[in-house]
Amino acid sequence: MIQDYSTALMTDMYEYTMLDAALKDGTANRKCVFEVFTRHLPLGRRYGVVAGTGRILDALEHFHLNEADLRFLSDRGIVSAETIKWLENFTFTGTIKGYREGEMFFPNSPVLEVEGTFGECTLLETLLLSILNYDSAVASAASRMVSAAGDRPCMDMGSRRTNESSAIAAARAAVVGGFQGTSNLRAAQLYGLNVIGTSAHCFTLVHDSERDAFVSQVKAMGVNTTLLVDTYNIENAIKTAVEVAGPELGCVRIDSGDLAALAQRVRNQLDTLGAKNTKITVTNDLDEYALASLQSAPVDSYGVGTMLVTGSGAPTCAMVYKLTEREGENGVMVPVAKHSKNKATTPGRKLAFRSYEYGLADAEHVVCGSEEQLARFQPEEDWKDLMVNYMNHGEADTQYQGSDAIVNARNHRAQSLAELPITAQSLMKGDPSIPTKIDLL
Amino acid sequence: MIQDYSTALMTDMYEYTMLDAALKDGTANRKCVFEVFTRHLPLGRRYGVVAGTGRILDALEHFHLNEADLRFLSDRGIVSAETIKWLENFTFTGTIKGYREGEMFFPNSPVLEVEGTFGECTLLETLLLSILNYDSAVASAASRMVSAAGDRPCMDMGSRRTNESSAIAAARAAVVGGFQGTSNLRAAQLYGLNVIGTSAHCFTLVHDSERDAFVSQVKAMGVNTTLLVDTYNIENAIKTAVEVAGPELGCVRIDSGDLAALAQRVRNQLDTLGAKNTKITVTNDLDEYALASLQSAPVDSYGVGTMLVTGSGAPTCAMVYKLTEREGENGVMVPVAKHSKNKATTPGRKLAFRSYEYGLADAEHVVCGSEEQLARFQPEEDWKDLMVNYMNHGEADTQYQGSDAIVNARNHRAQSLAELPITAQSLMKGDPSIPTKIDLL
Repeated sequence: MIQDYSTALMTDMYEYTMLDAALKDGTANRKCVFEVFTRHLPLGRRYGVVAGTGRILDALEHFHLNEADLRFLSDRGIVSAETIKWLENFTFTGTIKGYREGEMFFPNSPVLEVEGTFGECTLLETLLLSILNYDSAVASAASRMVSAAGDRPCMDMGSRRTNESSAIAAARAAVVGGFQGTSNLRAAQLYGLNVIGTSAHCFTLVHDSERDAFVSQVKAMGVNTTLLVDTYNIENAIKTAVEVAGPELGCVRIDSGDLAALAQRVRNQLDTLGAKNTKITVTNDLDEYALASLQSAPVDSYGVGTMLVTGSGAPTCAMVYKLTEREGENGVMVPVAKHSKNKATTPGRKLAFRSYEYGLADAEHVVCGSEEQLARFQPEEDWKDLMVNYMNHGEADTQYQGSDAIVNARNHRAQSLAELPITAQSLMKGDPSIPTKIDLL
Repeated sequence: MIQDYSTALMTDMYEYTMLDAALKDGTANRKCVFEVFTRHLPLGRRYGVVAGTGRILDALEHFHLNEADLRFLSDRGIVSAETIKWLENFTFTGTIKGYREGEMFFPNSPVLEVEGTFGECTLLETLLLSILNYDSAVASAASRMVSAAGDRPCMDMGSRRTNESSAIAAARAAVVGGFQGTSNLRAAQLYGLNVIGTSAHCFTLVHDSERDAFVSQVKAMGVNTTLLVDTYNIENAIKTAVEVAGPELGCVRIDSGDLAALAQRVRNQLDTLGAKNTKITVTNDLDEYALASLQSAPVDSYGVGTMLVTGSGAPTCAMVYKLTEREGENGVMVPVAKHSKNKATTPGRKLAFRSYEYGLADAEHVVCGSEEQLARFQPEEDWKDLMVNYMNHGEADTQYQGSDAIVNARNHRAQSLAELPITAQSLMKGDPSIPTKIDLL
């Protein structure tokens, strides 16, 4: 990492070589509309949750090539001297709209629409996709876990099982997906998230006895702390924990074994010892299915790691960034699409709405056409418009950045999910919970 | 991202709260040995490839708390004022040894050993695991892909399908795993990697015709460029491509459809047109199985994306960081281990060797004991010592950082894999290709 932070090379080389050729032939200045969408949800998933748009706005603030970046492009001969000149004061001046963070998405939902010149839009492809694909994968997994957990809070503890920077994005996306907090300090610092923590086995092991470790932890952190009780023998540990902290002990954590059975035994033992308010948290490779199976166990909260930060089997959303409309030689906008086998695209700009019946969503409507056609389009009365304006001619709408935006996204996810048919919350494999209807004007 | 870059909060909160308690009770100063290992390989995998240790050395250079970090820990009440004081000039002064980058690993291989005080070692847990878990997952997947690709070069094109910073680490890990280069500019800049690129469908679509796009690209990049030929109709595109660039055209890329059949058709057509030296590269959700199935197709190189950067079904290596030995009250080192169900650990320091029969590895030997026992241990004559010294009392051995280290790791991976039984290169699910023998002295 360099001091003068830039996101401008977090891209694939071809974006700069295409820019170089397009500057030479003039097409770099053509107005363009690009769209982000996915062709399918991960197998059997009912919906996805959009996350990462706030981070996109952050990343674009830093999308300026610094001297080292320009030198690199020049030294490696990636672009011509004229293009280096063009890049010197580069800043994205286009317009971005898209689904809100926390919004549900389905196959072909136009999650993001980017409008600007070909030159400026093409440079953003990889960075936008990286952010949306990973963050939405985590938020989508988180959302299923939160449904399976019911009223019990879920906490992100997955940092160690993904790249150290992904971990920060994962913590944020987990909260968008309905999690209550994270163990990741950098994420808490950067995004103002709740930060939580318990204790590790090494803390018990570094002490001469488990009792010494508990005494030390309670002394430093107070009786409301969470003691880890499965280093040696859980029954002995619970006894020691309540002796050390008293019946006001905040919480105990179990990290191994048959969690449902152990939680019941630990609950009984705590109750017998008078620690009726001491909570139980469990961790240990949990996923949405494990959480569902723990519904009747006396557990108060969950720490979820690996399966959260790796998208619970779907570590990417397979979103793509495609040109859908561009200016022609005569200045008129032309809808375009590729015809590649199994990878064809739908031409034209898009609007997106969700329709409802008896208060529940029954379809996603993607309306495609020219700017004029879309301006004239009248959605039906109960249709909700799914797109918001993130950036207007290079100016970000700051309401979508920062900690408040994450809280809003979290609330929006809860509301948006509640408006889907109840099958959306099923963990059984099935079709997307509402169909996507493409409407070509 | 902040200007004054620090990795010190890329951790879980409990590391700092444990430090706080351990400083208060004195155990923070106890000498400790921590070990990184995994209990199992991903289902059916024959081996894993270590990657990320060079990045660990880089990350530790930045593991110093800046003012914002200290203020955050203080404002959130995570640690006491005394601990803030202790952290002000924190720098890791311990010793790290471990497997080389590019080395094969198996269940219970002591991939990394960290020695220092409890306080300094505990702070590193999450950061070290994040790096090793992700980088090794990608290198392990890459290695299988490279075996399946035979002599044909594999290129990383996966940046868009993982977090934007993961993408950089993935490119580096891919090369450790045997890839030849990456499309990721930032990774190429940071690690001196080969950078490659072709062209996107949007470049064809922004032009008034495919021919215009090809003319523009060849003009900007020369005839040795790679033209993307599946935007509309592949046969027409090949014809146009050779008309535009001549028979000296460098390469064409196919990104959709039945790649084996298309490659054959494209090869025939190119040959007929006299473009006998024009190469064919294919991309499109390739994994090691797809590469294996393309062995007899006339393809010259592969661009691999999603499945590379997500570890081809195993996005983490499930490595853990466990305390194995620590100083007692009397200053004598004591081996320690947790007894948690299914998660018990092996106490004591470790040495690691690989033994050979007829030139091929036949076992991994993990020798556990006290420092004195291990110093006296005599491995058998043909055993290879698998551990190198990465850091000595806070001083990194710089031969393991930078671009040369990546090339060395790549070569080491090839040699190390060649010394495993040939079944290691099988894509069929099976047991680890050599057993790990634990030797308690």
